[in-house]
Amino acid sequence: MAGVMQWLSVASRRSLVLSRTAEWNASGTLKTVPLLTRGAHVETSSARIEKLVPNEYDGPLVKTEVPGPKTKELIKELDAVNKNAATVQSFVDYDKCLGNYMVDVDGNRLLDTFAQISSIPIGYNHPAIIDVMKDPANLSLLVNRPALGVFPSGSFPSTLANVLLSVAPKGLSRVQTMMCGTCSNENAVKQALMWYRGKKRGGPPTQEELESCVIGKEPGCPPYTVLSFKGSFHGRTLGCLTLTHSKPIFRLDIPSMDWPYASFPRMKYPLEDFEAENRAEEDRCLKEVVEQMEKGLATGRDVAAMIIEPIQAEGGDNHASPYFFHQLQKICKQFGSVFIVDEVQTGCCTTGHFWAYESWNLPEAPDMVVFSKKMQAGGYYFKDEFAVDGPSRVFNTWMGDPPKLMLLGAVLDIIKRDNLITVARESGQVLLDGLKSLQDKYPDLLSRARGMGTFAAIDCKDPDTMGKVSRIVKNKGVFMGTCGTQSIRFRPSLVFQPHHVDIALDALDSTLADISVQ
Amino acid sequence: MAGVMQWLSVASRRSLVLSRTAEWNASGTLKTVPLLTRGAHVETSSARIEKLVPNEYDGPLVKTEVPGPKTKELIKELDAVNKNAATVQSFVDYDKCLGNYMVDVDGNRLLDTFAQISSIPIGYNHPAIIDVMKDPANLSLLVNRPALGVFPSGSFPSTLANVLLSVAPKGLSRVQTMMCGTCSNENAVKQALMWYRGKKRGGPPTQEELESCVIGKEPGCPPYTVLSFKGSFHGRTLGCLTLTHSKPIFRLDIPSMDWPYASFPRMKYPLEDFEAENRAEEDRCLKEVVEQMEKGLATGRDVAAMIIEPIQAEGGDNHASPYFFHQLQKICKQFGSVFIVDEVQTGCCTTGHFWAYESWNLPEAPDMVVFSKKMQAGGYYFKDEFAVDGPSRVFNTWMGDPPKLMLLGAVLDIIKRDNLITVARESGQVLLDGLKSLQDKYPDLLSRARGMGTFAAIDCKDPDTMGKVSRIVKNKGVFMGTCGTQSIRFRPSLVFQPHHVDIALDALDSTLADISVQ
Repeated sequence: MAGVMQWLSVASRRSLVLSRTAEWNASGTLKTVPLLTRGAHVETSSARIEKLVPNEYDGPLVKTEVPGPKTKELIKELDAVNKNAATVQSFVDYDKCLGNYMVDVDGNRLLDTFAQISSIPIGYNHPAIIDVMKDPANLSLLVNRPALGVFPSGSFPSTLANVLLSVAPKGLSRVQTMMCGTCSNENAVKQALMWYRGKKRGGPPTQEELESCVIGKEPGCPPYTVLSFKGSFHGRTLGCLTLTHSKPIFRLDIPSMDWPYASFPRMKYPLEDFEAENRAEEDRCLKEVVEQMEKGLATGRDVAAMIIEPIQAEGGDNHASPYFFHQLQKICKQFGSVFIVDEVQTGCCTTGHFWAYESWNLPEAPDMVVFSKKMQAGGYYFKDEFAVDGPSRVFNTWMGDPPKLMLLGAVLDIIKRDNLITVARESGQVLLDGLKSLQDKYPDLLSRARGMGTFAAIDCKDPDTMGKVSRIVKNKGVFMGTCGTQSIRFRPSLVFQPHHVDIALDALDSTLADISVQ
Repeated sequence: MAGVMQWLSVASRRSLVLSRTAEWNASGTLKTVPLLTRGAHVETSSARIEKLVPNEYDGPLVKTEVPGPKTKELIKELDAVNKNAATVQSFVDYDKCLGNYMVDVDGNRLLDTFAQISSIPIGYNHPAIIDVMKDPANLSLLVNRPALGVFPSGSFPSTLANVLLSVAPKGLSRVQTMMCGTCSNENAVKQALMWYRGKKRGGPPTQEELESCVIGKEPGCPPYTVLSFKGSFHGRTLGCLTLTHSKPIFRLDIPSMDWPYASFPRMKYPLEDFEAENRAEEDRCLKEVVEQMEKGLATGRDVAAMIIEPIQAEGGDNHASPYFFHQLQKICKQFGSVFIVDEVQTGCCTTGHFWAYESWNLPEAPDMVVFSKKMQAGGYYFKDEFAVDGPSRVFNTWMGDPPKLMLLGAVLDIIKRDNLITVARESGQVLLDGLKSLQDKYPDLLSRARGMGTFAAIDCKDPDTMGKVSRIVKNKGVFMGTCGTQSIRFRPSLVFQPHHVDIALDALDSTLADISVQ
C-alpha cells in the first residue's frame, strides 16, 4: 500500500514493544523508525494490551498528507460560510472515531492526544455514552430543551445531586450549571462580586444603587475588580477577556475593563531540582498580588475576587507549587476576597486528581471551583456562604443543557468503574518520563518537560520548531496540541493508556530525528 | 373529580366555541366561566380542530394548586443544591408534554404561552424532532462533542449551508455559530469592534498594540464603545450586561464599562392611532443617538457599533416604527458604525416574519443579525465585509453544538411544511384582537395591547396586578410570562393556533373577572 504508513504496535501495558522497525511515510518512502528506549518501562513481553475502550484500533493509519485533500476542500467550503475556517485542523468522520483515535474524512486515523481541546472525557464513541444517548428514557430531554431556571424537569434536582455533587470539591456543597467554561467563569465572577458588595453594604441596596445600576453607573455598578494573572486564559467574552493575559490575538481591538493582574510564577523544571529558585520566583509574584490588593483597597477599587488556573494552559502550561496556592488562599482570606479556581481545563481527573487543586492540600477548599470541557456540562461549585442572595441574579434562558448532564453521568460511572484517575496517573508518569528522555536525547530542540497526570507539556526550541513538530507528528499519525509561544501540550482523554503514550512518544521521537537532520 | 378544573373546548380554527360554561377551580368550587365574545371570530360551527401537533391535548387540566405540592418539594430539593431555585415556576414531566401543553410533576397540564422563555420552536415532543434525535445516523453527533473551530464533522459545512443559511437574512451571507444568545451577542459585538478598529487602523497592528492588549491597555484595547438603548436586554455576561438597561436586578453590584446608551421610544398604542405623537417620541430618541455618536467621535471613544432589539422584550415589549429603524441604519452608515440587530427573542417566525426586521423594509439588511432561543443553535449572521480578518480571533472550545443544528433542521422543515409563519400571523391577529377586546372590557385593569404575530403583550394596572394575573391564570390552566414592570407577555411556540389563543384569552378573561370582584 504505497502512501500508507501503518502502526502495528503490540505493546504490553506500561511498555513499548513495536513489532516492526520500518514504516511508510506519507510520500511512500520506507524509512527506519527510531525505537525509543525508556529504561524501566521497556518490557519484552508481548502480552496482550487491555484496552479500556473495547475494539479500539491498534494504532494510527495515515493514508494521505494531513490535512488531506477532502479536508482542504471542506475548509474552503466552511470558509465560504463563516470566513473563519483557518483554525480547522481536520474534518472528522465521527462515526469512525473510537477511543483515542480520531478518523478524518480522508480516512486518516490519528491518535488524538489533544481530545478536542481537552474536552473529550472518555474517548470517542464510548459504548457507555452511546447507551445513554440511545436510551428511550432520555429521549424527551434531548427533544425538549428546558429553561432550567424556570421549568426544570422533575429529575433535575436529583441529577444535580447524584451526578454533579457526587464529585463536588470537598466543602463546596452547592453547584450552579451553565453552558460552557466561559459563561461559567463569567457567572462565578458575577456571583463573587455580588457577594463582596453585599458584604460591604451590609443590607438591602439603596434606591440610588438600584437606579444607577440600570445605566451602568456607580454606586449601583461598583468599581470593584477581579484579579487575574499574566499568562492566564479564562475565556473570550468581554468580562473573561479582561481576566485573560496570554496571547495578543485574544484581546486585540477589544475594549477592556481596568482590572488588576499579577505575575504568575515562571518556574524552572523539574520543580524538585530548583526549589530555592522557584520559591523566590513565587514570592516575587505573591508580593505583586498583595500590592494589587492593597492598591485596590486604597483607591476604592477593591479586589473582590481572584481567579486562577491550577496550571496555566493556553498561556504555556505554567505550573506553580502548592506553597503558591496556599499563600494565595491566605491573601484572599486576609483581604476578604473570593478565591476562585478555574478548573475548566484541569478538572475531571486529567491531572491524576479529580480536581487539580486537591494536589495542593489546602486547609480548606477554594471558595469557588469552575468546570466545563471534560465535564461536558459547564458550571461552578461554591461554598454555601457565597450563594446569591435573591432570585434571578444569576440566571439566563437555558442555564445549562440536560443532555450534557446525562452524558456526564455516564462518564463518571466509567471513571469510577475503570479507575481512570489511576490511569491518568500511570499514563502521566510514563508520558513525563518519556518527555524527559526525549529532552535528554534532543537537548537542542526540547526543554522544560513538565506535567501532572497526562496534563503535560514540553517546550520546543522556538515557535517555528513547535509548528514543525506539530505538523510532522500529525503526518506520523499523532495529533498533538500546542500552547504558549512554543510548547507542545498533551491533553488526551482519560482512556489514554501507557501503550498510547508509547505510540505518541515514538512518533515524537521520529519527528525530532527528522528535524535534527534537516 | 373534586379539585379538578377541566377545559373541554371544541373550537373551530380561528374561533372560540366553548362547550361548557362551568369549571372547577383549584379549590374544588364550581363557578361559571365568562365567555368572551370576539365579534367576527366567533363561529357557531363545531368543526373539528386541525391540530398542528398530532394527538395534542384538547385543553388544560389543573389537578392541584399551581405550583403543586410535588413542585414545592422539588424547589426545596433544588435550592439545597444551587441556592437559586426561587425562580422555578414548575417542575415538568417532559415525557408527558405535547405541543402547546406542558405537564408538571403534579399532573397539571398547562397551556404554555411562554414556551421556555420563548425558546421552544414547534411545541413539546414534536414527532419531527423525536425522529431526528432517534435517527441512528445522528447518534455520533450526540455522543462526540466536537471543538467546531478545530475538528468539525465532515457534514458541518453543508449543515451550515443547508440549515442556517437557508434562512439567512437577505444579504447576510455568512454565519458564525455560538452556544446561546448571550455569547452570540458577545461575539457579534467583538467582531464589530475588530472590524471598526481594523478599518480605522488601515493596516496590521503595531507592536505597541500587540503588547498593550495582553494587559488590557490602550492602544491594543481601544476605548471604543457599543451603543445600546434604555430598556434593552442583551444577556447577562459582563459585556452583555453593559449593553442591558432594563431591570436593576440584572446589573446590581456588577462593574460596568462606561458605554453610551440612548432612549428607546415609549410609544402609544395602537401605533396607528398615535402617529404624530409616536413620531415625535422617536425623533427625540434619534436625537439622543446622534448626540452620543458625535460625543463618542469628539472624545476618541468612537461608537463602533449599535445593538438593538426589534421589539424590546425583557424591557416590557416596547415597539418602535419602521421609521425609527430606518433612521438608525442611516445614522450607523453616517458614522461608519456597525448596525447589529439582536433577534434572539424576535427571530424564527414568532412575529409573523422569519426575522422581525423584515417588517421594516430597510433598503438593505442590518450588518449583523444575532439569533438563539427558538433557533436552538445560537450565533449571528453578518455581511461579508464584517468577517474577521484572521484566524482564532472569534473562537472558543465548542463554538456551538451540532445536535442543536440537527434539531433546527427539523424545525425549519416543519415551519415550511406547516406554513408556521402564516400561523403566527393568524394566531397573532386573533390574540391582538382579543387583547384589545379585553382591554375594552377591563379598562381599569388593562391597557396598551400590542403585538406583532404572536409576540404580544398587554399592560396591567400595576406590578401587583400583573403578579396576580400571572398567578391566577396559571391556576386556570394557562402559563403566561411577564416582562417590564407590569406587562403580561405572550411568547408561545409556532404551533400556537387560534384555538389555543381562545383558551388563553378565556382564562385571562376569567382571571380579570375574578380580580374585578375582589
